[in-house]
Amino acid sequence: MADSEPLLSLDGSPVAAETLLREVFGIVVDEVIRKGTCASEKVCEWKEPEELKQLLDLELRSQGESQEQILERCRAVIQYSVKTCHPRFFNQLFSGLDPHALAGRIVTESLNTSQYTYEIAPVFVLMEEEVLKKLRALVGWSSGDGVFCPGGSISNMYAMNLARYQRYPDCKQRGLRALPPLALFTSQECHYSIKKSAAFLGLGTDSVRVVKADERGKMIPEDLERQISLAEVEGAVPFLVSATSGTTVLGAFDPLEAIADVCQRHGLWLHVDNLLKHCHGSQASYLFQQDKFYDVALDTGDKVVQCGRRVDCLKLWLMWKAQGGQGLERRVDQAFALARYLVEEIKKREGFELVMEPEFVNVCFWFVPPSLRGKQESPDYSERLAKVAPVLKERMVKKGSMMIGYQPHGTRGNFFRMVVANPALTQSDIDFLLNELEQLGQDL
Amino acid sequence: MADSEPLLSLDGSPVAAETLLREVFGIVVDEVIRKGTCASEKVCEWKEPEELKQLLDLELRSQGESQEQILERCRAVIQYSVKTCHPRFFNQLFSGLDPHALAGRIVTESLNTSQYTYEIAPVFVLMEEEVLKKLRALVGWSSGDGVFCPGGSISNMYAMNLARYQRYPDCKQRGLRALPPLALFTSQECHYSIKKSAAFLGLGTDSVRVVKADERGKMIPEDLERQISLAEVEGAVPFLVSATSGTTVLGAFDPLEAIADVCQRHGLWLHVDNLLKHCHGSQASYLFQQDKFYDVALDTGDKVVQCGRRVDCLKLWLMWKAQGGQGLERRVDQAFALARYLVEEIKKREGFELVMEPEFVNVCFWFVPPSLRGKQESPDYSERLAKVAPVLKERMVKKGSMMIGYQPHGTRGNFFRMVVANPALTQSDIDFLLNELEQLGQDL
Ligand SMILES: Cc1ncc(COP(=O)(O)O)c(C=O)c1O
Ligand SMILES: Cc1ncc(COP(=O)(O)O)c(C=O)c1O
Repeated sequence: MADSEPLLSLDGSPVAAETLLREVFGIVVDEVIRKGTCASEKVCEWKEPEELKQLLDLELRSQGESQEQILERCRAVIQYSVKTCHPRFFNQLFSGLDPHALAGRIVTESLNTSQYTYEIAPVFVLMEEEVLKKLRALVGWSSGDGVFCPGGSISNMYAMNLARYQRYPDCKQRGLRALPPLALFTSQECHYSIKKSAAFLGLGTDSVRVVKADERGKMIPEDLERQISLAEVEGAVPFLVSATSGTTVLGAFDPLEAIADVCQRHGLWLHVDNLLKHCHGSQASYLFQQDKFYDVALDTGDKVVQCGRRVDCLKLWLMWKAQGGQGLERRVDQAFALARYLVEEIKKREGFELVMEPEFVNVCFWFVPPSLRGKQESPDYSERLAKVAPVLKERMVKKGSMMIGYQPHGTRGNFFRMVVANPALTQSDIDFLLNELEQLGQDL
Repeated sequence: MADSEPLLSLDGSPVAAETLLREVFGIVVDEVIRKGTCASEKVCEWKEPEELKQLLDLELRSQGESQEQILERCRAVIQYSVKTCHPRFFNQLFSGLDPHALAGRIVTESLNTSQYTYEIAPVFVLMEEEVLKKLRALVGWSSGDGVFCPGGSISNMYAMNLARYQRYPDCKQRGLRALPPLALFTSQECHYSIKKSAAFLGLGTDSVRVVKADERGKMIPEDLERQISLAEVEGAVPFLVSATSGTTVLGAFDPLEAIADVCQRHGLWLHVDNLLKHCHGSQASYLFQQDKFYDVALDTGDKVVQCGRRVDCLKLWLMWKAQGGQGLERRVDQAFALARYLVEEIKKREGFELVMEPEFVNVCFWFVPPSLRGKQESPDYSERLAKVAPVLKERMVKKGSMMIGYQPHGTRGNFFRMVVANPALTQSDIDFLLNELEQLGQDL
């Protein structure tokens, strides 16, 4: 029976809700914002999966838990999670803790709305428009359209779907079987999401024609030309070139001007604008009613392939408001300067070898342990060098001193990739990175 | 030049970060958790888009702003946003504020990691596994696989892609042109994302065969049979039936047992298990290195079409831990009881007409204003009744007293849809809903 009091202690009790949230927020401040960003604390506390399962007691039971237990849970979750905000977390393309970005996310989460209609997201519909306009201006466009997507992979799917729709609007209704075989072009350095997208969109990975990159990882426009002709000879219709500005590993920038020339000559799309709503729209009558009392063009939900969509714009907007364009620019400059500092240090130090001069903030390098120094000529050098990074990685993670990613790449064996992304980094963090590798690898 | 101090005041300054975040959190507590959930406050503060733009001063400038200004920004964002946590927000399929869920999100956002590898998300990889296991158990499965997706639409795309892959694994590489024409089946009551998915995946909306639903909105298995035969006669290969448990508007449940029988007879997939990694995997060598020092089966990122993926499991896990299975069950029971109370009240009151007896927590009804009562027989009755909901909607939003959605549906003109979802609701909120509609519409 429904009675006039809410059944559960916290439901409908803002005071109890407030108490819980204040406690949790206090834990976040202590454990993430203070300890998590403190260089003398561990970046991670490694546990084997089985042990971690025990420690976390993940099982969901029939009986609920007390507030004290729930706070203990939050502490444990934070304790065993990797601190991506730590000044020695270099493992991914992202790192650091931007307080304005986090503030934006806390506000977003507490308001917990969806971006589909002006009705329930008036502030965010207008805000997204403004942020997207500024982002377009950064690349020199004075008009256009856009949406925030849940990540780069899904953005790549959008690009592919728009390019396809632009060429063959019929595809939306009749499907790919009504079209000639299609071909799209991207370089061997592209992110793997391009192939994932081609598979997901029904094109098949075979439709992705891989264009050669030069030794710096940049798409070779002449090879693009060649691949386009080849595809045409084979009976496929080229429809899209997917270039990359800042590849995942090497941080290389494809030569956009030259690629754009090729696209123009062949009528291919390098970028697609103003198609989102036609391509994805479905005019759901329960959501996008035309008899609303405001301008329904503000119900932008039909531009996306999702229905409900979380608010992504506030985080960036608040950061941008706080830092200003100047502040963000300074961050970029500082990241480049620190990447340069790292490169110079690598060149100075024995035992470090640069994979190549970086053009972006990705710095790729090998650590050559004492036993391999001066052995470049021995036949198993590369093979032995490739085994170094996994060993150092295991050691640093188990020690918790730092995290940095490694990978093989083409014919090159495992090397480290440092991406200077955290605006809180200083030269001393860079020094630490190199010193720590030396120390971890001194017996190898 | 990189120097050894971070350039920007907040970067690398945990104290400043903490101060900002404490202030913002304080605003969230005051404006969202207290005021936002308070019945005597407005659920929304309607502004015309142009006016709202002025009020918010959205423009992003070159110059950054002071902390005081940023806090003012946060206050304004909250002030003009719809309070989806308000006890009179009935506009969507979601509403209310669950403090454990919000606590989970605050922790997730502060840890800001991605779910792709065990290396950087050890806690969440194991936690997602546990939550998914429990969710499978709820539907009676003792094994299986799964992922959290960014919403229902993308989940539907996954289902479609998996069903396609299961039938024709070749499609991943060779694309849809290498396959016979495919057909999938869903009812006329399905969510619009099914058609969006078919378009996005290259199948085309024509491949979606719409099966009739009965007057309660449930798929008719006999018509499914008919549609399958028809598709086969037309040379298409049926591969998937997409049923709905709880349709968007009416809250209807398709008869799964009978549909499963049809699927079995025709070899169609109603559900697909253990295919995620084969279907979506791309074995990116820079992320899913096989020479890692732990069991790489824990790097679950290759199950999804994304690369980076936000952590979604903590929110649900923490709620579940706190409430226990029992507590969640009680919430469901309470929602059903309140929906029942609403139905009984609608039947008792003059001027309210139920669209149909609900089977779920969606209660669909018309408000019949005084001037239309007893006029059911007049020829323009339906047409005039359909105009009532938009007028009441405008009035309630401009007043800020509550928000409830309306839509036309099939041959029925606009009616209200109340979804009892907020566990904080009581009978008095339901009474308020009906009283307020009466008051807003007394002159119509
Ligand atoms: C039955 C059904 N399926 C799918 C969706 C889409 O979910 P999302 O909004 O998360 O994309 C909805 C949304 O209302 C729905 O009602
Ligand atoms: C160049 C490039 N594109 C796309 C992606 C995929 O982005 P996401 O992880 O958000 O899906 C990445 C991720 O690293 C990337 O480096």
